[in-house]
Amino acid sequence: MVKFGFELLQKDKRTKARLGIIHTPHGDIQTPSFVPVGTQATVKSLTPEELNILGVQLYFVNTYHMYLRPGIEVIKKFEGLHKFMDWDKPLMTDSGGFQVFSLARKVSLVKISDEGVEFQSHWDGSKHVFTPESSMGWQWDLGSDIHIAFDDCTPYPVTHEKAKTSMERTHRWAARSLYAHRSFCHPGLDPGSREKKLDSGSGAGMTRKPYQALYGSIQGSVYEDLRIESAKFISNMDFDGFAIGGVSVGESKKEMADAVGWVMPYLPDDKPRHLLGVGEVDDIFMLVEAGIDTFDCVQPTRLARMGTLYDKKTQIDITKAHFENDEQPIEKSCKCYTCQHFSRAYLHHLFHVRELLGYRLATIHNIFFIQSLVSEIRESIKTNSFLELKDKWL
Amino acid sequence: MVKFGFELLQKDKRTKARLGIIHTPHGDIQTPSFVPVGTQATVKSLTPEELNILGVQLYFVNTYHMYLRPGIEVIKKFEGLHKFMDWDKPLMTDSGGFQVFSLARKVSLVKISDEGVEFQSHWDGSKHVFTPESSMGWQWDLGSDIHIAFDDCTPYPVTHEKAKTSMERTHRWAARSLYAHRSFCHPGLDPGSREKKLDSGSGAGMTRKPYQALYGSIQGSVYEDLRIESAKFISNMDFDGFAIGGVSVGESKKEMADAVGWVMPYLPDDKPRHLLGVGEVDDIFMLVEAGIDTFDCVQPTRLARMGTLYDKKTQIDITKAHFENDEQPIEKSCKCYTCQHFSRAYLHHLFHVRELLGYRLATIHNIFFIQSLVSEIRESIKTNSFLELKDKWL
Repeated sequence: MVKFGFELLQKDKRTKARLGIIHTPHGDIQTPSFVPVGTQATVKSLTPEELNILGVQLYFVNTYHMYLRPGIEVIKKFEGLHKFMDWDKPLMTDSGGFQVFSLARKVSLVKISDEGVEFQSHWDGSKHVFTPESSMGWQWDLGSDIHIAFDDCTPYPVTHEKAKTSMERTHRWAARSLYAHRSFCHPGLDPGSREKKLDSGSGAGMTRKPYQALYGSIQGSVYEDLRIESAKFISNMDFDGFAIGGVSVGESKKEMADAVGWVMPYLPDDKPRHLLGVGEVDDIFMLVEAGIDTFDCVQPTRLARMGTLYDKKTQIDITKAHFENDEQPIEKSCKCYTCQHFSRAYLHHLFHVRELLGYRLATIHNIFFIQSLVSEIRESIKTNSFLELKDKWL
Repeated sequence: MVKFGFELLQKDKRTKARLGIIHTPHGDIQTPSFVPVGTQATVKSLTPEELNILGVQLYFVNTYHMYLRPGIEVIKKFEGLHKFMDWDKPLMTDSGGFQVFSLARKVSLVKISDEGVEFQSHWDGSKHVFTPESSMGWQWDLGSDIHIAFDDCTPYPVTHEKAKTSMERTHRWAARSLYAHRSFCHPGLDPGSREKKLDSGSGAGMTRKPYQALYGSIQGSVYEDLRIESAKFISNMDFDGFAIGGVSVGESKKEMADAVGWVMPYLPDDKPRHLLGVGEVDDIFMLVEAGIDTFDCVQPTRLARMGTLYDKKTQIDITKAHFENDEQPIEKSCKCYTCQHFSRAYLHHLFHVRELLGYRLATIHNIFFIQSLVSEIRESIKTNSFLELKDKWL
C-alpha cells in the first residue's frame, strides 16, 4: 500500500515556485495543483466522471457539512467518502472549524473554550460540539487522504492580543489533533486521557489505515510576529504537511501575500503546503510563486453558478442582455466541453430561464479553465519560464 | 436529403401494436418510441451527449417557451434549434397552443377568436397573439423535424356543445396550419391572403426545407362522436402524421383509453401517430397496444426532480428518511450510470441537501428506465410476445 509522501521534483530558479508530486494511496497529485471544493460530498452539478475528464486530481469535502448531513455514521457504512461519492482519487477534508466559525455563527453565538467549540447547526439550530479529538475521529471515518488539524479560526479584523490568544489555542489544539490522529494510525498507542473524548463511533472501531495524512494549520492573522511564531511552532511538529489558514477571511490581497511570505521560510522543503480558500487567477500566480503546492477555493464553481465565466483577459457575466445573440463560445481557444459545443447565446438563455444545465456547463468551463491554467504553470516551472508565463497572464 | 416518411415494419398479431421507423433528415426513429420533453431547449439537467447515451431518439421542445425566451429571432441566428442546443438527431415541436391555454391562463384570461389566441406571457405579463400561421412560421424557424398543427385546446370538463365548437375551430385551424406550412415547403405556392399574417421574421426569408413534417391534431374531448368526427376530418387532410391531443388534461385513464380507442380505426396505417403528454408505465402499454407510435411526457423527468424514481414494481420516493443508510442502487438490475455508481443513500443525501447532482442522477435513471422499457416493448412486438411482456409488467 502506498503511503503518503511528498516528492520535490524541481525548484524554479528565480522564484520559490516548485514542482512536486504528493503520493497518496488513492494516487498521485502533480503539484502545484488546484483543489475544487465539493462541500456536501459533490462538486456541485458534476459527476466524478466529469471531474476526471476535467483533470481534477484531488478535491475537498467539508467535515462540518458531512457531520450534519448525511452524518458520519452514514459515511462509515460506506467505509468512507470515496465509496459514498464514487471517487477513487485523492480526497482532502478540513477540520470543520472554519464552517463552525462562519456558518454556525450566522445562527447564534459560537461558544469557544479550550476544550473545543459549541455551536448550532445552520440547518436546524441543533447544538453540537467539535473538539480536536472529535474532528480527527470524523475525518478518519470520512477516510480522506489528507486531514487538517482542528484550529481556532481567528476572526478578522482582530487585535494583536486576541490574535495571539487564538493562535496559542490553535497550537494546543494542533498537539491534541496530532495525538488523536496518531492514536488511529497506531492502534497500539494509548490515546490516554483524550480517549474518553473520542466519540465511540468515531474511528475507534475501524480498521486502522496508517496512510491517512494530517496537515498542521498555521494561524496568526495579519501579524508578522504571530505568523512566524505559528509557522515555527507548527512546522516543528510531526505533521505530514502544512495548511496556512485565515488568509482569505476578508483581508486584502496585500495582507494575504504578506502572511504567506512571512510563513514560507519556516516550512520544510520536504513537506507539502496547502493554502485554504484562495483561488483567483492573480492569487494563484502569487501563491505558486511563494512556494504553495495546493490551494482550494469555491470561487470558480460558485462564480459559475452565478453566470460569471472566466476568459483569458477577465470574467464575463453571461446573464447580461448583450449575450442573447452571441454565437461565439465563452472563450474561442477553450477546449472544454462547454466551449466545444455551445454558444454564449445558449448559455445566456439557460441562465435567463434558470435551467439546471446552465449551472453545470458553466461549472465545467470554470474548472477546466483553472485546471488548464495550473497545468500551464506546472509546465512553465519545468521549463524555467514561470515568470514569463505570469507576465503573459497578468 | 432524406425526406420525412414512415415505414411500418410489423404488426402485432393479437393487438394493434406496431413496429415501425420514422425517417427524418436528422435520422431514424425506431417506434414505438418515448419522447422526453426539453421544454426550454434542454432536457432539464442533461447534455445532448447524455441523451444520446440514454438512447433518446427524438425529443420535444415547446414553441411557446421558445417564442418567449430566448425568442424565435435568436434561434433563427443559429438556423434552428439543432445547432442552438447542439442536438443532431430528430426533434419535435408543438404548436404552442397547449401552453397558451394552460400556462398563460394562469396569468390572465386568454382571448380566443377564430383568428387565433391572445394571451399574456407567464414570465412578464406582456401581450402576444398566436395564430395557426404564426405558429407554423415559428416552428419552421425552430427547424424541428416534426411540427404540430395549431389547435384549440378544449378545456376539461366541458359540455358537448362547447367541445364541438372548439373541435370545429381546431379543424378550421388545421386547414390554415397545413396551408401555411405548405407555403414554406413550396415557395412557389402563393400563401395568398394568409401571407400578410406571416410575421416577416417567420420563415419567409429562410432557405426552404421541404422535409419538415406536419402532424394534424385531433380533438373532441371525451365525446365519442366528436372524437370520431375529428379523426375522420383530420385524417382526410394531407398531414404527414397525426397527434391526438387533449387526452391528458385531467381525464381518468379510462377516458384516455376510450378517446384513443375511438380515434385509431380512422387513422391510416401508413402515417405515424403521436400522443401528446402521456407516459406512465401502464399508459405506455395501453398506448402501444392501441397502435400509438410515439408519445411525449414530462412525467419521468419531472418526477425525477422531485426525487420520485422508477423501479420495476413501483416508484420510490428517495427523499424518505429510511433511504438514509441504504447501500443498494435505486434498482438492482438497472444498468444506468446512476445505478452503476451510486447508492440510494447518496441520492437521498443529495436530495436532502438540495444538490444539483441529485436532480441529474435521478433524471438519468428515470429516462433510462423508460427508454429500456420501450426498447423491451419493441423487441416483444418483433417476437410476437407483446401481451406476455405486458402481463409481466402490469
